[in-house]
Amino acid sequence: MEESASRSDKKKVVAVVGGGLVGALNACYFAKRGFDVQVFETREDIRKAKIVKGRSINLALSHRGRSALKHVGMEDKIVSKGIPMHARMIHSLSGKQSPIPYGKKGQYILSVDRANLNKELLTEAETYPNTTLNFGRKLQDWNAETGLMTFIRSDGSEEEIQADLIVGCDGAFSAIRKQFLRRSRFNFSQTYIPHGYMELTMPPINGEFAMKPNYLHIWPRNTFMMIALPNLDKTFTCTLFMPFEEFEKITTGDEVIEFFQKYFPDTIPLIGVDALKRDYFRLPGQAMVSVKCTPYHIGDKCVLMGDAAHAVVPFYGQGMNAGFEDCIVFEEIMEQFNEDFSAVLPEYTRVRVPDDHAIADLAMYNYIEMRAHVNSRWFLFRKHVDNFLHAIMPKTIIPLYTMVTFSRIRYHEAVKRWHWQDKVINRGLLFSATGAVLGASYLLAKNPPDITKLTVPVEKLWSRLMALRTP
Amino acid sequence: MEESASRSDKKKVVAVVGGGLVGALNACYFAKRGFDVQVFETREDIRKAKIVKGRSINLALSHRGRSALKHVGMEDKIVSKGIPMHARMIHSLSGKQSPIPYGKKGQYILSVDRANLNKELLTEAETYPNTTLNFGRKLQDWNAETGLMTFIRSDGSEEEIQADLIVGCDGAFSAIRKQFLRRSRFNFSQTYIPHGYMELTMPPINGEFAMKPNYLHIWPRNTFMMIALPNLDKTFTCTLFMPFEEFEKITTGDEVIEFFQKYFPDTIPLIGVDALKRDYFRLPGQAMVSVKCTPYHIGDKCVLMGDAAHAVVPFYGQGMNAGFEDCIVFEEIMEQFNEDFSAVLPEYTRVRVPDDHAIADLAMYNYIEMRAHVNSRWFLFRKHVDNFLHAIMPKTIIPLYTMVTFSRIRYHEAVKRWHWQDKVINRGLLFSATGAVLGASYLLAKNPPDITKLTVPVEKLWSRLMALRTP
Repeated sequence: MEESASRSDKKKVVAVVGGGLVGALNACYFAKRGFDVQVFETREDIRKAKIVKGRSINLALSHRGRSALKHVGMEDKIVSKGIPMHARMIHSLSGKQSPIPYGKKGQYILSVDRANLNKELLTEAETYPNTTLNFGRKLQDWNAETGLMTFIRSDGSEEEIQADLIVGCDGAFSAIRKQFLRRSRFNFSQTYIPHGYMELTMPPINGEFAMKPNYLHIWPRNTFMMIALPNLDKTFTCTLFMPFEEFEKITTGDEVIEFFQKYFPDTIPLIGVDALKRDYFRLPGQAMVSVKCTPYHIGDKCVLMGDAAHAVVPFYGQGMNAGFEDCIVFEEIMEQFNEDFSAVLPEYTRVRVPDDHAIADLAMYNYIEMRAHVNSRWFLFRKHVDNFLHAIMPKTIIPLYTMVTFSRIRYHEAVKRWHWQDKVINRGLLFSATGAVLGASYLLAKNPPDITKLTVPVEKLWSRLMALRTP
Repeated sequence: MEESASRSDKKKVVAVVGGGLVGALNACYFAKRGFDVQVFETREDIRKAKIVKGRSINLALSHRGRSALKHVGMEDKIVSKGIPMHARMIHSLSGKQSPIPYGKKGQYILSVDRANLNKELLTEAETYPNTTLNFGRKLQDWNAETGLMTFIRSDGSEEEIQADLIVGCDGAFSAIRKQFLRRSRFNFSQTYIPHGYMELTMPPINGEFAMKPNYLHIWPRNTFMMIALPNLDKTFTCTLFMPFEEFEKITTGDEVIEFFQKYFPDTIPLIGVDALKRDYFRLPGQAMVSVKCTPYHIGDKCVLMGDAAHAVVPFYGQGMNAGFEDCIVFEEIMEQFNEDFSAVLPEYTRVRVPDDHAIADLAMYNYIEMRAHVNSRWFLFRKHVDNFLHAIMPKTIIPLYTMVTFSRIRYHEAVKRWHWQDKVINRGLLFSATGAVLGASYLLAKNPPDITKLTVPVEKLWSRLMALRTP
């Protein structure tokens, strides 16, 4: 009864274009507010399809994503199907494994299955009576002034709909965004990085994980790297990141093994020689793109969210989290401006653009940090200093990773704060070092030591200092 | 006879898309090499049309553009119809005019009429028997693999053509570039600046130029500025650059006059009160975009040149010059690789992208320099130092503006060299200043002066030094 009553008083129609992660979650948000929500997805229902092609298999869910899921009561369900990862596990060339915690004790990110998460979100969206999921609908045309949209159904027939608000959640190659590009004064950039990625599977051994499961495993090798995330079925998904020309250099199974022997020898028995030789050639290296644009809206009719507005490279594990946070930020502004789209949309652009641009830049920065800096002792030393300072001054010094991953501090503010902290800490270290040298000089002057006995410790100290500097 | 002979041995077809400045010049280049050149232009023939709408009226032609024209024997003709501008003429708020020369004596840039230049180039292209100009042809579709292109004629009919090479010279909003955008790993950015521009005409007074003609007049006012270039008909075209929101603040004729009274009082009698009140509202502020992309080619079939590849903001006067230089660079590579498109196109991308990106960045930098730095005494002082050093060491120190405007030093090398020179000169100035102070101290110590007599000069010196720092 409630349904028919609400349908009759002409609720505003929100057309969500794209039924991926952000589209499906957004459907829940708009449905919760009582709009008539229509989701249009080009593909068929992934809950019925056998194989989901394309995107990577698992994702790292952290605080921002969880907060967004919580708002629609989905957090616990999703978290229960995720695998906590408390630390990075760095694999050196010699096979040595060293953990670097992500944050304080009890802080972790979650490895979640993309396809399962998407399915759960679609099912949740459908529980709202004011939501309809329309699959197999390809966007043909739409009018940013009137909100009239035309879709082509899988059978070739046309379908028209009049939307009050069009929400473009159709990913990095957004069809909705194309019309933004045709308008004047729309700033846009798409940047492909020189690296591609390739996914390989590490099967369970005797029914158990082949490596410690509660870690995000990293093999940093400077110009390239491999990472591995655990799955519920006790496999690991290994992702190899490498410049395209390096991928192309390897053309035979033997060359694959030779390459792994040289750079990732510890993974060969775990992935398996035959699997490696076969799976390396299943698909070529996949491209990764970073997309930035502004504004995110046209008038009071259309808004971009998720990858359609800001695709990021995957190296900060924030792509999905930023997209999910878009939903809360929009929700907060809807509340603030009483659902008046003509005020909400410009405000969303004003508030969200600097944050999305900041996380896009951070992800690009981490693209270097993850594969190179984690090999540097200075970097590791600074991580320890940051964590120590955070422990004794939890509100003054917060490591960047913690701000990004375990808080909802606005991304662009996290970056600002990081630059400030870095300056302060580096100065502090310089002063401490100077103080230590002065103190030592003073003590030495007061009690001149027996030089012969000093030789060894000084040499040791020197070599340690030098070692700290080398990458 | 020669014509029919060459037609019969199936020359390769080069389809030049766009009959603007770069398209028309390119047609001459390809025709000179003996290709079957087909130019396709959406608009009707501008030589027959009454009014040419859109783009700005005059342009600054300098060394790179002239070199490109020279190769097809067009330099003298075009130069004879240009007006030399030897210096910037800076108009202060008080009405004071101060010239800043562009380079050495005898070096100048030329104010040329865009429409006339375009017409001359089209007429020149038509003198080649192996060139056809096709007007009123709108690109409908094209295939980057096969080179098959479909155009719509003005009467609605379709026209197909099979090209061996497609040259996209169709401007900042290139239709050809759209297909590049759909391909993977194409990097692209378009950035609109917050300023718009508006053109106003300053008529002759008693049949003579209203201001000194052989200058590019500039009214720098920090957040905005106006410039004026002379035309052959003894008018000046004044271009006002201002943030869009400032344009929009002015809504009545009286507000226009009030605004000009405040910032450009010396121009009011020259443009005229009535003309100002009327012409300000003829068109709204026009947008300016900077476009960068890479690669410039697809396979061995298609290449982008001119604004289609690299639209720049107009503040370095290099948009047309860079586009014309594209033609020579491509020509040089064609020579080097014996017209083998499969080698020429990748090499063109490799060589030209860094230079075009450099000039795009420089134009963006000059967008600030022109309206703000030229007001700074430090900037003027450095210009004098640079010019002086260039005069005594012409090969070691070359001012950036000279490298960009009066040489064919590759843009990206000019930028590198500029950074190096800047470091060297600033250090030199620091050493000289330190030396002067030390010398003075030494002299003072040897002959202690009467302090009471020193007070005034020191104060003066101090205030002069301070004045140097203020913008």
